[in-house]
Amino acid sequence: MTTLVEYADAPAEVRAVYDAIKAARGVPDVNNFWKALAVHPPTLKRIWESLSAVMAPGALDPLVKEMLYLAVSVAHGCDYCIASHTAAAKAKGMTEVQHGELLAIIGIASETNRLAQAMRVPVDPQFDV
Amino acid sequence: MTTLVEYADAPAEVRAVYDAIKAARGVPDVNNFWKALAVHPPTLKRIWESLSAVMAPGALDPLVKEMLYLAVSVAHGCDYCIASHTAAAKAKGMTEVQHGELLAIIGIASETNRLAQAMRVPVDPQFDV
Amino acid sequence: MTTLVEYADAPAEVRAVYDAIKAARGVPDVNNFWKALAVHPPTLKRIWESLSAVMAPGALDPLVKEMLYLAVSVAHGCDYCIASHTAAAKAKGMTEVQHGELLAIIGIASETNRLAQAMRVPVDPQFDV
Amino acid sequence: MTTLVEYADAPAEVRAVYDAIKAARGVPDVNNFWKALAVHPPTLKRIWESLSAVMAPGALDPLVKEMLYLAVSVAHGCDYCIASHTAAAKAKGMTEVQHGELLAIIGIASETNRLAQAMRVPVDPQFDV
Amino acid sequence: MTTLVEYADAPAEVRAVYDAIKAARGVPDVNNFWKALAVHPPTLKRIWESLSAVMAPGALDPLVKEMLYLAVSVAHGCDYCIASHTAAAKAKGMTEVQHGELLAIIGIASETNRLAQAMRVPVDPQFDV
Amino acid sequence: MTTLVEYADAPAEVRAVYDAIKAARGVPDVNNFWKALAVHPPTLKRIWESLSAVMAPGALDPLVKEMLYLAVSVAHGCDYCIASHTAAAKAKGMTEVQHGELLAIIGIASETNRLAQAMRVPVDPQFDV
Repeated sequence: MTTLVEYADAPAEVRAVYDAIKAARGVPDVNNFWKALAVHPPTLKRIWESLSAVMAPGALDPLVKEMLYLAVSVAHGCDYCIASHTAAAKAKGMTEVQHGELLAIIGIASETNRLAQAMRVPVDPQFDV
Repeated sequence: MTTLVEYADAPAEVRAVYDAIKAARGVPDVNNFWKALAVHPPTLKRIWESLSAVMAPGALDPLVKEMLYLAVSVAHGCDYCIASHTAAAKAKGMTEVQHGELLAIIGIASETNRLAQAMRVPVDPQFDV
Repeated sequence: MTTLVEYADAPAEVRAVYDAIKAARGVPDVNNFWKALAVHPPTLKRIWESLSAVMAPGALDPLVKEMLYLAVSVAHGCDYCIASHTAAAKAKGMTEVQHGELLAIIGIASETNRLAQAMRVPVDPQFDV
Repeated sequence: MTTLVEYADAPAEVRAVYDAIKAARGVPDVNNFWKALAVHPPTLKRIWESLSAVMAPGALDPLVKEMLYLAVSVAHGCDYCIASHTAAAKAKGMTEVQHGELLAIIGIASETNRLAQAMRVPVDPQFDV
Repeated sequence: MTTLVEYADAPAEVRAVYDAIKAARGVPDVNNFWKALAVHPPTLKRIWESLSAVMAPGALDPLVKEMLYLAVSVAHGCDYCIASHTAAAKAKGMTEVQHGELLAIIGIASETNRLAQAMRVPVDPQFDV
Repeated sequence: MTTLVEYADAPAEVRAVYDAIKAARGVPDVNNFWKALAVHPPTLKRIWESLSAVMAPGALDPLVKEMLYLAVSVAHGCDYCIASHTAAAKAKGMTEVQHGELLAIIGIASETNRLAQAMRVPVDPQFDV
């Protein structure tokens, strides 16, 4: 059974991160991922700060960032991550059709990835520039 | 050594696919990936048709599609695919900063993917809706 | 449904392995992994013998061996293995803080692994000695 | 071709990280991994800070940390990471025999990981406590 | 919760694919995989057509094809695929002993795969012909 | 640089395994994989014995066994293993067309594996029997 640290039982350094997450996301409680990470407070803090920095507004659209996150999660077979980032992408406006196209790209990319590896295709000179 | 089928040596059914690829992309020759696939003509034809359908203009921007493709390729550790889709994304306008942000997302997603799996985090009820 | 072979229903060659596992570990019954493997007795026997040889006392500390096993299991996304080897590591003395550091290493290694692959970093000459 | 940012061509924010790495490790130059990351300075800085925090002295021995890093890198098939972390582990005192045992654990863990997944083994109740 | 499109609620283009699957397999209803894919009808149609073409009678025996499919699914850690293709292989005549040998190959291949990667073994010249 | 132990420099226990491999395969020298494994003689011996047992004549055809090995190697992205087991399969009689069909199965299986994971498809009750 995964240990989940609830706010009421959390030490001050964990509560500080939970408060930051809740404020940034406008939610009443943090997800299980953070409650599980809280058993090691320095990792909880570091991951939250890294994630915030990477997913902050930048040169890529927030929804695009979320879909890229989801694509990586699928390729790693992380069930929790697929569930949470699919929900996050929908919350950021991903439509049913965009989701369908995303799935199609993940599928065909997985297929051509393994074919390219199976055939040990040499990299074309123009891709090495 | 991977067998690469050159146009001059290709049977008619392979040449037809090569011609379609060259026309669609406006290039004088096809990449090594297609030349390797050509040893099995039905797979060459099927993959080209699937890829064309999936990557055609749709609800997602062409550059976004290309970056999603690249993200999956990295997570699968496909060296050829990383090289070719990085080149393709740049050709479609990916800037240095967008590439940097894409890499950052791939990195942090890989980290949280493994952490979520390592801790066997139960899926939050709200993600299961 | 996975077929699990219980001791009472097991043929002699399977019972012999179960007895060896129970004696080596001082447990009253074997885990589900072994009960599932028992549908193919030669594999059951071979895996038990390989595992015993690899995990026997040697140049590495037993707890270190168990943590290495767990790290590999996380990277392969094997839920059963993560559960059983986390329990085994705790039984061998892994503290909460050691577990936290182990998770942190798995996380950051996963991140830099994918970044190094994404950028196709050439191996430094000094690493090739 | 991967872009590698040399110190002489690097902007101030990149030089600052390079200087920190060189000081911490007592080396005259940084590895290619850092030179590749430097195309996106915020990621360079974040990864260096995360890595330093995770690999700092703690509850686990520095050599153990390095071997765990290597085990994860092998499971992800990251060639660069395998080369660099094998070298790092040797530099921290990993003997030939310890390396052999590490390899053996990675091997047998990979085998049982896939067997447990192939048989869809249900998690034993005692592992879920 | 995964959205599963039942026949009664499906649009005409989805029903056409469901009908084709049911006719080809002689089953009264399609599996959940197809009901999930149906949220994006073009992908449903494309995958069914690709799968039918690849798994059609050819130079490899149908049971061999199914076991190859299962082996790949295990290496990707796809739980749904392992369940469905194990069932399909049994339906095509895979015996208990053949299943045991298949598992053994998956296991030992996984072990030697990671060992070869861990040691960065150079490809022998005779394999590169 | 990977250390490769040549016969002339090998201790008696390593030579004994090399001799067994050469006799079993009718070859004048062993492949690089074995020369790399020889740095840890107990692992060399154990892997050779496991491999021999698993790949021995049984309920599955030798060529089928070799193709299953190759399929797993592709899914793990092991370049050395892909090269050596493609060569081995050809030596055992795999035709160009069989190779093409094998590649096609690996490709489509990779695609449906990731789609099934991405959609978190619930296992059908009939697959759980």
